[in-house]
Amino acid sequence: MKETTAAILTIGDELLIGQVIDTNSAWIAQELNKSGIWVARRTAVGDVWDEIWQALDETLTHADIVLITGGLGPTADDITKPLLAKYFGGTMITDEKALANVNNIFKNILKRPMLEANLKQAEVPDTCTVIQNANGTAPGMWFEKEGKVVVSMPGVPYEMQGMMTNYVLPKLKEHFTLQHIAHRTSLVAGIGESFLAERIKNFENNLPAHVRLAYLPHYGLVRLRLTAKGEDATAIEKQLDNLQAQLKPLIQDVLVAAQDVSMETVLGTLLNDQKKTVATAESCTGGYISHLLTANPNSSSFFTGSVVCYDKKVKETVLKVDKQVLEEKGTVCKEVAEQLVKGVIELVNSDYAIAVTGLMGPDNGGEDKPVGTVWIGVGNKEKVEAQEFHFRYDRRRNIEMTAITAMNKMRLFILNNQ
Amino acid sequence: MKETTAAILTIGDELLIGQVIDTNSAWIAQELNKSGIWVARRTAVGDVWDEIWQALDETLTHADIVLITGGLGPTADDITKPLLAKYFGGTMITDEKALANVNNIFKNILKRPMLEANLKQAEVPDTCTVIQNANGTAPGMWFEKEGKVVVSMPGVPYEMQGMMTNYVLPKLKEHFTLQHIAHRTSLVAGIGESFLAERIKNFENNLPAHVRLAYLPHYGLVRLRLTAKGEDATAIEKQLDNLQAQLKPLIQDVLVAAQDVSMETVLGTLLNDQKKTVATAESCTGGYISHLLTANPNSSSFFTGSVVCYDKKVKETVLKVDKQVLEEKGTVCKEVAEQLVKGVIELVNSDYAIAVTGLMGPDNGGEDKPVGTVWIGVGNKEKVEAQEFHFRYDRRRNIEMTAITAMNKMRLFILNNQ
Repeated sequence: MKETTAAILTIGDELLIGQVIDTNSAWIAQELNKSGIWVARRTAVGDVWDEIWQALDETLTHADIVLITGGLGPTADDITKPLLAKYFGGTMITDEKALANVNNIFKNILKRPMLEANLKQAEVPDTCTVIQNANGTAPGMWFEKEGKVVVSMPGVPYEMQGMMTNYVLPKLKEHFTLQHIAHRTSLVAGIGESFLAERIKNFENNLPAHVRLAYLPHYGLVRLRLTAKGEDATAIEKQLDNLQAQLKPLIQDVLVAAQDVSMETVLGTLLNDQKKTVATAESCTGGYISHLLTANPNSSSFFTGSVVCYDKKVKETVLKVDKQVLEEKGTVCKEVAEQLVKGVIELVNSDYAIAVTGLMGPDNGGEDKPVGTVWIGVGNKEKVEAQEFHFRYDRRRNIEMTAITAMNKMRLFILNNQ
Repeated sequence: MKETTAAILTIGDELLIGQVIDTNSAWIAQELNKSGIWVARRTAVGDVWDEIWQALDETLTHADIVLITGGLGPTADDITKPLLAKYFGGTMITDEKALANVNNIFKNILKRPMLEANLKQAEVPDTCTVIQNANGTAPGMWFEKEGKVVVSMPGVPYEMQGMMTNYVLPKLKEHFTLQHIAHRTSLVAGIGESFLAERIKNFENNLPAHVRLAYLPHYGLVRLRLTAKGEDATAIEKQLDNLQAQLKPLIQDVLVAAQDVSMETVLGTLLNDQKKTVATAESCTGGYISHLLTANPNSSSFFTGSVVCYDKKVKETVLKVDKQVLEEKGTVCKEVAEQLVKGVIELVNSDYAIAVTGLMGPDNGGEDKPVGTVWIGVGNKEKVEAQEFHFRYDRRRNIEMTAITAMNKMRLFILNNQ
């Protein structure tokens, strides 16, 4: 069976001048992958007629499916629709369902008068199948040409995601006979990519030819991903289960989860399973750990609250850190990390707490320690542990590294003290 | 003068299966743009020999410069270096400076024994100019072929950024005679893209042919960007200044800043200018506003702290919200938003405070209000204002929209009450 391949084509000057980060392509790639469609290429071009045309020609030689996002807005720089009408031929007609949708959005949701540009959003070439937009005004378009499929969708993430989930993915599965694709991911923390590779070298060298192993490092974590493709779904799944089981004892001590999840999800699930709650006292991470934990829709069951104690006075007055310790040892030390844990547990009455205090850079804020010095404290009502870390480089990376490391410390503390 | 164009080629399966979001391309595109190099295309391919080779062939027909990131790691799935050695010819040699760098990192920074795979990172084809890596082990490579330039850099963001800033950008400016490119960005809030377009239609229709206007919407904000390219830098800068001045009165009421900055930077700068401080009391945003404000390296001068009052009890005990109000009206109402502002100002002694309480979804947490209902409060020690908002769609978007809207409310409150 021939492998079905896709290309993602993103349209918009904003991607080429770097004003916007392309999150759509990552989402689309994930969804296609789960469906057994291999993404062979991602291309981004600007709002320029010839460049879009040429990119469409090229991607159609590489892939069976081209998914296009962007360029469908109501403004003059959005030229995707007229281009596709020319590329695939046909006459522009008003789609009645799309028009009713635009009318409804303006009348009942936005409660504002409609503009002519919005009405034009309901126009489509009569050579496409219209994809209704449940979350916005611009409809999507499905074209077919010589056995290949080209789909155009808006660039607004939730609009595109709605179309993909409700229409495009199911229809692609109908239209193509798809190979089975399967992944197994192990999330590990506290070991570098090259040390991990050295440790599992024999495992990697003995992998069957149709199984690939990828190392995906990201801020203190590495995702180890096994991928296999083929026609016999049952055999592939079984083989990957076996390989995952062989890998597990080799990485047991650094394994966070045997699936592709985030550190915050692992910690949230652990807390939920134990019906316990956590709080944070954050100085240098400025609420980022709290933000990560509450990105989880179930967080109200395990997350109590946080104090972002940026100002030294807040550490002292709100979280009861000893004034003398602050004066003698500064804000970045073992004692402050420990007292922040105790202070926030006391204040918000959580079962556990994470505390961080450190210097994220670019300067060291007058403290007598290098940028990247961080003390992380974790604990419960009975016991508190604190450890010093040294991160490097830029502020954003230090904040990310501190957050991941602190959540992993909390996870290990919970597992070791139950 | 011919325009100098670049293509960005990103290598790695992780981008094609969507496990990683490509932030490198956005950063590179921004930097090239500032230097007068137009990014014509961005392409991502997997760790597959033929696909990388083909993409390199193709991008070299589209662009004068190809910047490659990724695939230089120490593990077996990283094949960029052998491929480039074959593509450009030459023999692999050990670069002494790169080797000294790898040795130094392991000896003095990581303080761990080195592996053979790490040693191999110092090997490069003798047909390239080596780019030293100040932030990691893998060196970069600069190749030239028929007047075109191909640069290979690691995929780790801070390593790539170091090479670009210290070596690649200066050398590209030497190597090519570059056109002048200039942008003017206006950041607006509180108006939709199509209404904005309608309002400035005449301005847009009368723009000179070599000036482009782009609308870049992002979570409650729209960036309006004017771009011009040409040989006479002074004339172009002056023309854009004039156009920006014509645009300003048309958007005065919704203009946040006449430059390309973030809402949090605008608010931080305003507070710094006034030597005032802000705090936040966050329920539904879970610390995200606090995180955004503290991403600014200068935040310690204007940011006091936050209480993330996720649990109802924290609202009551820590921030002194009236128990009766919570019982009778629930947590999402005007009174709670107002009392949170007062409570956090009292607790952390800031000049201003932002408070948010709402329902981010996917469910409404048992409250008698629809998902997306948010009350935002802003105020100082004398005065508090609160307003109800209705956002829609998914949790992540609601958190982003709430944060941006709340910071804009705070900005306007400060400007209106000074």
